[in-house]
Amino acid sequence: MLKIAVMGHGVVGSGVLEVFYKNRAAMERKAGTEMDIKYVLDLRDFPGLPYSDKFIKDFELIANDPEIRVVVEVMGGLDPAFSYVKRCLEAGKSVVTSNKELVAAKGAELLRVANEHDVNFFFEASVGGGIPIIRPLHACLVANQIDEIAGILNGTTNFILTKMIREGMSFDDALALAQQLGYAERNPAADVEGFDACRKICILASLAFGRHVYPEEVHTEGITQLTLEDVEYARAWGGVIKLIGRAKRLPSGKVEAMVSPALVGNDSQLASVDDVFNAVLVRGDATGDVVFYGKGAGKLPTASAVVADVVDAVKAQHSSTSLRWEDNPAHDTVQGYFDNEVRMYVRISYDNFDKAMRAVVDLFGGVKPLYRSGSEDEMAFITGVCTEREMTQRLDALAARGIPVLGKIRVLDY
Amino acid sequence: MLKIAVMGHGVVGSGVLEVFYKNRAAMERKAGTEMDIKYVLDLRDFPGLPYSDKFIKDFELIANDPEIRVVVEVMGGLDPAFSYVKRCLEAGKSVVTSNKELVAAKGAELLRVANEHDVNFFFEASVGGGIPIIRPLHACLVANQIDEIAGILNGTTNFILTKMIREGMSFDDALALAQQLGYAERNPAADVEGFDACRKICILASLAFGRHVYPEEVHTEGITQLTLEDVEYARAWGGVIKLIGRAKRLPSGKVEAMVSPALVGNDSQLASVDDVFNAVLVRGDATGDVVFYGKGAGKLPTASAVVADVVDAVKAQHSSTSLRWEDNPAHDTVQGYFDNEVRMYVRISYDNFDKAMRAVVDLFGGVKPLYRSGSEDEMAFITGVCTEREMTQRLDALAARGIPVLGKIRVLDY
Repeated sequence: MLKIAVMGHGVVGSGVLEVFYKNRAAMERKAGTEMDIKYVLDLRDFPGLPYSDKFIKDFELIANDPEIRVVVEVMGGLDPAFSYVKRCLEAGKSVVTSNKELVAAKGAELLRVANEHDVNFFFEASVGGGIPIIRPLHACLVANQIDEIAGILNGTTNFILTKMIREGMSFDDALALAQQLGYAERNPAADVEGFDACRKICILASLAFGRHVYPEEVHTEGITQLTLEDVEYARAWGGVIKLIGRAKRLPSGKVEAMVSPALVGNDSQLASVDDVFNAVLVRGDATGDVVFYGKGAGKLPTASAVVADVVDAVKAQHSSTSLRWEDNPAHDTVQGYFDNEVRMYVRISYDNFDKAMRAVVDLFGGVKPLYRSGSEDEMAFITGVCTEREMTQRLDALAARGIPVLGKIRVLDY
Repeated sequence: MLKIAVMGHGVVGSGVLEVFYKNRAAMERKAGTEMDIKYVLDLRDFPGLPYSDKFIKDFELIANDPEIRVVVEVMGGLDPAFSYVKRCLEAGKSVVTSNKELVAAKGAELLRVANEHDVNFFFEASVGGGIPIIRPLHACLVANQIDEIAGILNGTTNFILTKMIREGMSFDDALALAQQLGYAERNPAADVEGFDACRKICILASLAFGRHVYPEEVHTEGITQLTLEDVEYARAWGGVIKLIGRAKRLPSGKVEAMVSPALVGNDSQLASVDDVFNAVLVRGDATGDVVFYGKGAGKLPTASAVVADVVDAVKAQHSSTSLRWEDNPAHDTVQGYFDNEVRMYVRISYDNFDKAMRAVVDLFGGVKPLYRSGSEDEMAFITGVCTEREMTQRLDALAARGIPVLGKIRVLDY
């Protein structure tokens, strides 16, 4: 009988236990062996559960128990998750995790350690919750060059944006509602500032391009500056605002990567992804665009991805799969973002329309103005394409000519 | 060096050769072994290709060559593909196919033969072209019960419908354009009558529900009866018409399965799938709704799926994976379609509006009428839910009361 340890009994951890015991027979059939969970590691007590006797507080019991072949890490955070996971791999145990922070910061190192010890480090649940994305992306790579990935990777911000777009709710009200519904944390920074989406695009980009992309390399903007006026202009333009994490292979060998709000046209497959749903668009040279869509978070979707990884880890025992990428200690996989090409939605206010339009045309050439109802001292427009550096210079010049810039959002073409 | 044979050098077959030689180094790295294509079986001659020396016309060379470990079947059709594939499996060779007709008609049998001989029968490319769907669905099954699958499974019909919806092109003109662009065959019946979509939903349903669903069991309607008037009423209702293949687990243990045109609301993830794209929605009890989207056909997308399967077959040598389902020689997996529950869009013409409305209300209860511009002697409405049997009776009764039914389309809620 193969034995498993689960480290962490929070939302995902308790879901893993639930899904495991519900589907145990089917899992054993697929894995070709009987299996059971031997330990659940958590500092808290959970009396009255059918598996309360499995709880332990000492990690050493797991590390030193040769019977444990697969360890599930669902504690979250880097410390002590990183040292625990590394020690398990070094002890010849495969590890399955849903911890995106861990994979984004330490993926290359942990994959190398796993490979050196002929075990596996799997992390399907770290991106897109229950949406199968890591494994299909890895399979796609066999016969494709992945050129680009773009996704709605954070359900909380997508819920907030959906409320702003569909119901005209303000950012603050939508955030409060998300908190009330349990979609957002009390401290929502990791979601609304884009850090969570950043970790996820780092994981996808590392896998797709074969070299670790670190979160520190990726310019990241959140959604806290967005207003209902922006939403209205986006509608006038024919699109919606989404928080998009994206990464693109450049001819130089570097990667363009960024997380930011973006206008996407209504006919984009990403435009219709609403509420807490996620979607990942993968652009391969043979497959063309493939999109994976589903619930990006939640107890049971995430737990089901973890449990599927456990079965794969059991099946792949005694061999390390080809799932890995190179480390890049220099942290220079990503091109400096000022060199990225960009097209921008810009919202300005003015006293004198003719003077404002002259300044805009001088700096940006011919543009199509966008209007919203009931407003006479402001407008918006979509620029042509230039580098981020030039864009910043032009926007600064606009302000210098007495035209205040009220808002700006990148325009993407997916 | 592991040797491969490719049977069939049509569009997909030549794509397989192209993708294989382009990605050979990466494939060998992933597979952990060197490999090459030894034979290409085709009755035609292809002089002047870099691999022209590999062509053979005699299948026996493949069947009797112990060096051949993996065989790619991309001939299409049942005869001789079925007997060739079966003999390869019996000879201990794994087989990869893109042939949906073969898998839909003989999948259970071929999977059993593969299992008996410790080899594999893989068919990722048979559904959704380059979209990874078979393997993710199989992985989903580890920790999920799949309750329902619905998809836009045929790119040709979706292209035609998109032209009707977006450009007001008639069915005949859109079909002619699809033929001109190479999306539709000279004889378009397999596409426009829904047979192709039927085979694909059979494959997905068999995998999801564990028992073979035969195409003969699945009530199948094509798109040849659809008119631009239907498209206009669908718009008035707030949706679009798509050709949907679907299958649903019933409490009785049977499966509800059908291919038909359907109205789906504009906020459905399936509504925005346009042109030759496909999408498959999978409803799992833990994951919720997951959607896979991409190009459902085409030389390189399909070939890349075949090639990824080849690598998996090489990696899984000497063991048969858990990918399989039970046969059902009685062909009664699917519930008789008259027992299905249905909601219908109905289009009628009338001489006397009040008389028509009285008949409609008598037979269907309160309904919301739909109108289209410029028409005064017809209308449409959406019924409540009843069985297909009752629906047929009510529509017959409507006609008997002198109200001609000009069109009817099922309304789905995805």
